[in-house]
Amino acid sequence: MEITKLEPEKRQGLVVVLTGNGKGKTSSAMGMVLRAAGHGMRICVIQFMKGDIYSGEWDGVKLLGEQVDFNVTGKGFCGIQGNPYPHSEHRKNAQDAVKLVHEKMMSNKFDLLVLDEINNALQLTLVDLNQVLEIMEKRPDHLHLVMTGRDAHPQVIDAADTVSQVNEIKHAYRKDIEPQPGIDY
Amino acid sequence: MEITKLEPEKRQGLVVVLTGNGKGKTSSAMGMVLRAAGHGMRICVIQFMKGDIYSGEWDGVKLLGEQVDFNVTGKGFCGIQGNPYPHSEHRKNAQDAVKLVHEKMMSNKFDLLVLDEINNALQLTLVDLNQVLEIMEKRPDHLHLVMTGRDAHPQVIDAADTVSQVNEIKHAYRKDIEPQPGIDY
Repeated sequence: MEITKLEPEKRQGLVVVLTGNGKGKTSSAMGMVLRAAGHGMRICVIQFMKGDIYSGEWDGVKLLGEQVDFNVTGKGFCGIQGNPYPHSEHRKNAQDAVKLVHEKMMSNKFDLLVLDEINNALQLTLVDLNQVLEIMEKRPDHLHLVMTGRDAHPQVIDAADTVSQVNEIKHAYRKDIEPQPGIDY
Repeated sequence: MEITKLEPEKRQGLVVVLTGNGKGKTSSAMGMVLRAAGHGMRICVIQFMKGDIYSGEWDGVKLLGEQVDFNVTGKGFCGIQGNPYPHSEHRKNAQDAVKLVHEKMMSNKFDLLVLDEINNALQLTLVDLNQVLEIMEKRPDHLHLVMTGRDAHPQVIDAADTVSQVNEIKHAYRKDIEPQPGIDY
């Protein structure tokens, strides 16, 4: 059997949004990182809010080599029980992350930019709607932009090309199964 | 800031199902592959039906090294326009893949087993419901099992721990944008 190698007549950057309350938004973004790495593309990941709890993808992307630039910018989920940092500190981190997004985006070094949990950061007012829309507007045409997190803003959905809503049908934690490495973190 | 390294009191294999018509099911499974690789886990992927069109994850997983055993078993989507192979040939391939699943599952060499598009293969009668349920029943307790594809069977959903339904809110192809490498394949 011959294997088809697709090549679009026109390569163009897509804006992909993964939202909803189910498992599989960050995982999906990381899958695109793996896929893009397979194509030899250059990838930048900026994780908003995350940073206080180790997750396997931090080491997973190292295996992909220098083509992935991975940035963890947060101190955990703002307002979640047990998180000791005030809103102002979470907001400062997220605002620094927005600056980093512009730097990375304008460097022209990347084919794929993942902004993990940015929808959440917007919902929690750690970043502002106009800041997110500005990132989308200033995105270079060739750059793929993937944005994850619950509660994506309707205007962000409007401005995106591909949007998936990941709905929880069931989740192991509801059976009191603890988060498991490799699957949940 | 100190980084928390979670470790569950009890490690146990989870059955995760990713279904629905939206983008992000295989991507999500590949993200779990990347995450599990970061944890140093041993991973086996068996793609049902896929095999006729190159996708970036085929080379992406090679970058993760020998800890990933990746198997492409199909000849494309049965019944889709342009696919030249009869149902009987697709079924034979899928039946061989089921044998491979049992071999890999019983080898005790893996911590994560991904059965990509198996829901689709079931829906298209390339595999039978009792075969899929048997795989789920015989799964060793420690093994994570991730199953993707549209139209997951209700009994498969019943027997799973975590299930997400990925719904299409919008997709670039509806604007006549061709599939793009790194994102769509």
